[in-house]
Amino acid sequence: MPQFALRMQGAQRSFIREILKVTADPTVISFAGGLPNPASFPVAEIAAAASAVLAESGARALQYSATEGYLPLRQWIADRYRAKKGLDVDPADILITTGSQQALDLAAKVLVNAGDPVVIEKPGYLGAIQAFSLFRPHWRSVPLLDDGPDLPALDRALAGAKLFYAVTSFQNPSGLSYSEAKRAQVAELLRRHDCFFLEDDPYGELRFAGRDLPPVYAQRPEHSLLLGTFSKIAAPGFRLGWIVAQGEIMERLVIAKQAADLHTGSLDQMVVQRFLADNDFEAHVARIRKLYGGQCRAMQEAIARHFPRDVRVTAPEGGMFLWATLPEGLSSMELLQLAVERKVAFVPGAAFHVDGTGEDTLRLNYSNADSETINEGIRRLAQCLEICRARRSASLDLDEAAMQRGCQD
Amino acid sequence: MPQFALRMQGAQRSFIREILKVTADPTVISFAGGLPNPASFPVAEIAAAASAVLAESGARALQYSATEGYLPLRQWIADRYRAKKGLDVDPADILITTGSQQALDLAAKVLVNAGDPVVIEKPGYLGAIQAFSLFRPHWRSVPLLDDGPDLPALDRALAGAKLFYAVTSFQNPSGLSYSEAKRAQVAELLRRHDCFFLEDDPYGELRFAGRDLPPVYAQRPEHSLLLGTFSKIAAPGFRLGWIVAQGEIMERLVIAKQAADLHTGSLDQMVVQRFLADNDFEAHVARIRKLYGGQCRAMQEAIARHFPRDVRVTAPEGGMFLWATLPEGLSSMELLQLAVERKVAFVPGAAFHVDGTGEDTLRLNYSNADSETINEGIRRLAQCLEICRARRSASLDLDEAAMQRGCQD
Repeated sequence: MPQFALRMQGAQRSFIREILKVTADPTVISFAGGLPNPASFPVAEIAAAASAVLAESGARALQYSATEGYLPLRQWIADRYRAKKGLDVDPADILITTGSQQALDLAAKVLVNAGDPVVIEKPGYLGAIQAFSLFRPHWRSVPLLDDGPDLPALDRALAGAKLFYAVTSFQNPSGLSYSEAKRAQVAELLRRHDCFFLEDDPYGELRFAGRDLPPVYAQRPEHSLLLGTFSKIAAPGFRLGWIVAQGEIMERLVIAKQAADLHTGSLDQMVVQRFLADNDFEAHVARIRKLYGGQCRAMQEAIARHFPRDVRVTAPEGGMFLWATLPEGLSSMELLQLAVERKVAFVPGAAFHVDGTGEDTLRLNYSNADSETINEGIRRLAQCLEICRARRSASLDLDEAAMQRGCQD
Repeated sequence: MPQFALRMQGAQRSFIREILKVTADPTVISFAGGLPNPASFPVAEIAAAASAVLAESGARALQYSATEGYLPLRQWIADRYRAKKGLDVDPADILITTGSQQALDLAAKVLVNAGDPVVIEKPGYLGAIQAFSLFRPHWRSVPLLDDGPDLPALDRALAGAKLFYAVTSFQNPSGLSYSEAKRAQVAELLRRHDCFFLEDDPYGELRFAGRDLPPVYAQRPEHSLLLGTFSKIAAPGFRLGWIVAQGEIMERLVIAKQAADLHTGSLDQMVVQRFLADNDFEAHVARIRKLYGGQCRAMQEAIARHFPRDVRVTAPEGGMFLWATLPEGLSSMELLQLAVERKVAFVPGAAFHVDGTGEDTLRLNYSNADSETINEGIRRLAQCLEICRARRSASLDLDEAAMQRGCQD
C-alpha cells in the first residue's frame, strides 16, 4: 500500500452511516437517519418530467454540460430567492453542485489551508466537519443557544478566523434557528472581525411554525457563501445542490468544481428544472411542511408523555431534527446500546462536536416515521433512559459505599 | 474577499472549456471538444429504463443511497471485467464515482501531500493535471512513444515517486496505446520502484482496430487503482464512473467520497443499471466502435489528402483523438488563431504538458463530426498550416536579411 496523504489521518466513516447499518433491519424504529420521508417524493411528477426531457432534449440531457450548471435551473433558484427572501441574486451568482455536500468540499478546498482557524457551531453539522476536516483546519466551536450562537463566545472565536460555518435555520443536528436579532448581531460580529461566512440552508423551505427570516447572507453577500439543496424539497437521490457566491470566489469555486467532477449530472438538472416548471412547487413544499410539522408534534407529544422531565429537548420551528440533552452523568452512547437491543436507534451527539464533548446529547430525526411509530420508539427510549439512570444511581451508590468503606479503613 | 487557499494559486479554468465557447457557434467545425457523438446515445432505451425504475422503485431511486454505490451496477462492472478482460474483480472492489473526474479528485486527495512526486505521461490527460494540481504535487513527466512510455525516462521518473498516472489505451490527448510488451515492462518498473499505479481507462471499450489487451492493473491489482466510466459507453450526462481498488485504500476512498458528495446519484445509477440489464450492451458498444472507427478513418484520409507530409500524426486503434506534431518552428497557438478565423477549432497541445513544452502539438477530436465535415475542417486547417509556414519562412528570411545587413554594417 502507498503511504496515504496526511489529510487522511484520523479520517473516519460517518458514524451515522455505521448506525444506519443497524437500522437496515426493518423491525428497528430509526430516529437515526436524516432521510426525507419518501412519501414527500413527487415520483409521478418526476417520471413525467424525465419522459418529457428525454423525449424533447434527449441528446442534450445525456451530453456533457457547463460546469456552472443548467441555466434555467439557476434562473429558478435566483427567482425563488428574489420572491421568497427578497434577495438580489442573479443566475450567474449560482453554481450547481453535486448535492450541498459537494459545496462544502469545494468551499473548504478553495479557502482552507492546514491550520487555518475555522469556526463551527456546537453542536455542528457532521457533513461539514467531515468535508472540512480533510483540509486540516484548526477547529473552534461556539455553543448554540435556543436563538442562535452564544455571542461572547462567537466574538472570541472569530478573532483571526478564516471563516464561520453555520446552519442558521432548523439546524442539523439541533433543530435550532437563529432569531432575527441574532442574525443581525452575527452579521455585525462577522463585519467587525472581517470574517468570511459560509451559511448552509438545506432546511430553510421546511418551516412549519414561526415567521420566515432572510438568511444572514443577505447582510453581507460579498463576504459570504449561501448553500442550498433540492434534497429536501425535491429528492436527495438526484444529488443537486447549489452555492450562491459573488465576485472573485465564484471563479475559484468553478475551477475547483471542474477538477472535482466537471459538472453535475445534465439529466438530473434538466429533470428537476422541468418538474419545477410543470408543477405547483408552492403546494408541493406546503405538503412537506405539513407532513414534517405533524411528525415533529407527534415526537414532542410522545416526549412529553414518556420522557423524564429533566431531559432537555429543543423546540424546532422547521426541519427534520430534535436535539436532546440528558441529565447529568448519563451517556448517549450507553443509551444507544440499550436502545439497539430494544430495536430503536438515534445518533449520539458526540459526533457533532469538534471538541470531544457532547456525550450527554443525542439527535432524534422525526421526518421518517408515522406518529404511532414515533410514540412507540420514544416510549422504548424512555425505558432505556430509566435503566441508564438506575445504573447510574447504583454506580453512584457503589462509589459512595466504597468511599465510606475507604473512610472506615 | 477572503484569502484563498494556497492550492488555488495558479489554478485555471480548463483551456479546452474556454475554446468550447468559440465552438458554441454552430458554423464552426470543432475538433476541440472531447464529446462523445450524441448519435451514440441510447436515448429511447434510457427513457424506457428511467420509466421502469421510477414506476417500480421510485422511492428508492429518489432517496439517499450507499456511498459505495448501487450493488447491481457494481456487480455488472465486476462481471464485465471478468468476461472481457479476465480480471478477478469483486463488486466490493468497486466504488461508484460521480464521473471518473471525481475518481481523480478522490485518488489525489487520499494519496498526495504537497510536494509528492507524481509521474504523468507527456502529453498527459488535462483533467488529471487539473485534479491533481490542486493537491500540489511535484510533477514529473515521461514522453509517450507510439507503443507506450519511454522506458529509460520512466525508470528515472519513478525513483521515489508517489504514483504514476497513465491512460494506457487510446490515450487522451494522444490516441496512443501501450503495447503488450510495454504493459509488462511498465508493470515491472512499477514493481522495481514499488510505485503505486493509477490506471485510467475511459476509452478501453472503444477499440476499432487491433487486439484487446488487459490493463496493466491486472499485473499488480494490490498496488494499483483502475478507473472506468460510463461516459463513453452509455452517456456522459449521467456523471457515472468507478474506481477498482483493493484493500486498505478502498476504505480511504470511501471516506473521501462520503466527504465529497455523500454518494453518486441514486436514480442515475439505477437507470444505467436497468439500461444495461434490458438491452444488448455488446451490440450497443459495437455500434459506437464502428461509428468512431469510421470517423477516425475519415480524419486520417483527410489528413493524408490535405496536410503537408512533415506534420506527424498518431494512428489510434480506438478512442476519440488524434495527436499531431507540427514541423519545427510552427506553433499550434498561432495555428489556432488562424483556424478560428476560418471557423475551425482544435486544442493546442501545451495544456497537456506539465513541463511548459508542447507548443508544436495539437489534439484533434474526430468523434463528433461526420466524414464530410471532417474533410472540410482538415482542408481549412491545412490552409492555415501553409500560412503559418509561409509566415515562418518570411520571418526567417527577414532574420537572415537582418543578419546579413548586420554583417555588412
